[in-house]
Amino acid sequence: MYLESPRYTERFGSVRINDIQKVVALDSGLKSEIPPHGAMGVVKICEDTIKDFEDKMAIVIPIKNEKLKLFEGVISGIPHDCLIIVVSNSQKEPVDRFRMEKDTLNQMCRYTYRSAYIVHQKDARVGEAMKQAGYTELVDENSLVRNGKAEGMVIGLLMAKLAGKEYVGFVDADNYSPGSILEYVRIFAAGFSMAKSPYSMVRILWHYKPKFSGGMYFRKWGRVSETTNKCFNSLISSRTGFETNIIKTGNAGEHAMSLKLAELLPYASGYAVEPQELVSIFEQFGGSLPSGPADVVRYGLDLFQIETRNPHLHEDKGTEHLGGMLLAGLSTIYHSPLCDEETKQLIISQLTIQKAMKPKQEPPKPHINRPPCKVHIGEFVKHMEPHLETCSALYED
Amino acid sequence: MYLESPRYTERFGSVRINDIQKVVALDSGLKSEIPPHGAMGVVKICEDTIKDFEDKMAIVIPIKNEKLKLFEGVISGIPHDCLIIVVSNSQKEPVDRFRMEKDTLNQMCRYTYRSAYIVHQKDARVGEAMKQAGYTELVDENSLVRNGKAEGMVIGLLMAKLAGKEYVGFVDADNYSPGSILEYVRIFAAGFSMAKSPYSMVRILWHYKPKFSGGMYFRKWGRVSETTNKCFNSLISSRTGFETNIIKTGNAGEHAMSLKLAELLPYASGYAVEPQELVSIFEQFGGSLPSGPADVVRYGLDLFQIETRNPHLHEDKGTEHLGGMLLAGLSTIYHSPLCDEETKQLIISQLTIQKAMKPKQEPPKPHINRPPCKVHIGEFVKHMEPHLETCSALYED
Repeated sequence: MYLESPRYTERFGSVRINDIQKVVALDSGLKSEIPPHGAMGVVKICEDTIKDFEDKMAIVIPIKNEKLKLFEGVISGIPHDCLIIVVSNSQKEPVDRFRMEKDTLNQMCRYTYRSAYIVHQKDARVGEAMKQAGYTELVDENSLVRNGKAEGMVIGLLMAKLAGKEYVGFVDADNYSPGSILEYVRIFAAGFSMAKSPYSMVRILWHYKPKFSGGMYFRKWGRVSETTNKCFNSLISSRTGFETNIIKTGNAGEHAMSLKLAELLPYASGYAVEPQELVSIFEQFGGSLPSGPADVVRYGLDLFQIETRNPHLHEDKGTEHLGGMLLAGLSTIYHSPLCDEETKQLIISQLTIQKAMKPKQEPPKPHINRPPCKVHIGEFVKHMEPHLETCSALYED
Repeated sequence: MYLESPRYTERFGSVRINDIQKVVALDSGLKSEIPPHGAMGVVKICEDTIKDFEDKMAIVIPIKNEKLKLFEGVISGIPHDCLIIVVSNSQKEPVDRFRMEKDTLNQMCRYTYRSAYIVHQKDARVGEAMKQAGYTELVDENSLVRNGKAEGMVIGLLMAKLAGKEYVGFVDADNYSPGSILEYVRIFAAGFSMAKSPYSMVRILWHYKPKFSGGMYFRKWGRVSETTNKCFNSLISSRTGFETNIIKTGNAGEHAMSLKLAELLPYASGYAVEPQELVSIFEQFGGSLPSGPADVVRYGLDLFQIETRNPHLHEDKGTEHLGGMLLAGLSTIYHSPLCDEETKQLIISQLTIQKAMKPKQEPPKPHINRPPCKVHIGEFVKHMEPHLETCSALYED
């Protein structure tokens, strides 16, 4: 894979925010010359390097009643050396969709000699292990993990930790193009290979997101993303004193982190989860608030934003969720102690103009699940480890 | 890459026609176990094997006034170790689109340290070299190569020969998804690695071809393909006495061949080119007509039909060309000396029903360019070799 080199980096405290790097070519061959690092603005990420990081990576797929054809395509695109972790919140009755997902995954794993885990979000053993870990806000009154993609993501990343992985990436199950999934994961690996710190995050920017209403139209910037990024940049500008547009992936659903970083971040419910990760990174490591762990301050944190070559083709969920998405994202910025008055006003005016909120209101506070490092991960591991085998896609019950 | 193993093969003379093999997973990792060949119906094609064949392969892209964004995406998806050969018939005036294509290719090659050739179909030196080779039917009265994709393909495969490649693959320039292009070429390599004969062909079947008219609808079989395949199968059945539906890629645009095979085949003009290749294979190597070279009879010929994982997303060219496409494809079968009366009637009735031809007519005879082996390839090489350097994408004029 050839990528643009990280030509431009802004610093915010200990955080190194790299500007967009585009994928130049999907493959870089076996025998080709390795250009001097960063010469001519392009870096070659060798196949061996990519495979090396894939081997240390778990890919978490949160899924809820998605079309099986799409799910099957998604898992067929995940590089073989990655561990697949499916966290499903699909129905079990009247049709047992969870069972179908498990069967699909089982078939793929058997035929391609790979391993994977699949666990239901409402699995009583998972709820119990979370409770034992003290993750009370994640568990409902029936001792089951609450609904929500963010909650599924937490299960996924704790499973990745349990499986001894060093990196965790997230991809959605509603993608039409297995080739895109392959590219996302290779981008994650490429990003981690460029990181100088053990604390790193890779966020994906889609090259284009085609709209099919009457012919093909390739949208580059959705309105929600545009607004979320604008508010993020306003927040950073207010702190650094220099106007910036460095953040271009505020809403990125496809993203990956080192587990070391993943353990330090809180996970907000619903659409707030991805923007909240960024907000928390800035709070903890931006240097303005006295809360970053010493280790991160020493190594810094590498944030990569990488633009795919493939267009993003996913299941069309309509437009009703867009208002909620905008509201959830901006509320994480609004309620951050970092947020200045000007950015707050910008958020309120944007939410009002785009009819995501009634005038003269405040965005609601996001529901935030504490960072895994604040609970007893050891207890989760202790309670889940005996059941791990039964979560294997190859386990026959 | 994991593929279904060639579980079912029909023989037609020396031709081994393999039934559809699906791509099971896009990547097969570095360290994974290699299953015993064909065990459980799946074969692992190792990364090294794929790269090895890519290194011996040229990918020809015929292009005519295509959107540059699409062209750029296509070349970004072609594996690095393949030689890219662009044969352009784009306009040079009033806007020099050929120059733009050359610039795009040049930029890609410079930044990713790869080589490529780009040549214009109307390049006087190419026309002259073809004339010297005695390829009279390919050249018009101005000593320039005639218009048409097939004619561009012949230029491409002779350039591949000139460059010392052993395999040549064809992909269209109007593909939206670089990841699909990557998959096509990896499928070509995987197919060749399974071949037992030096005479081999790989034809691609798209997993799905989405239609965007009011929501997404994933079409598996277009009507043109369905009809063309039906007539092919009728022709084979009439010769073998066993009814069959083995041919599923009669119209496959994405396909690849060993150069040894490519030299033996004639190339029909227009939409007839891909079906004609199959017809000619059956004529020469099917054993019914006394015309196959002894070498092929000894080794046999491997025909692979491989189904992608990715959906096929390409520029929508409307539906007007579909009738012409059907007519051109079926005319190659109709005019083959192999074609029996029953298949001829089937062809006429299908063309009439689908309004591709007026009732009580005969499909027109396709214009066929002789196989390269019938002309003086040596003369082409002799006349083009001195100019080869100027066809390099990196050549600055």
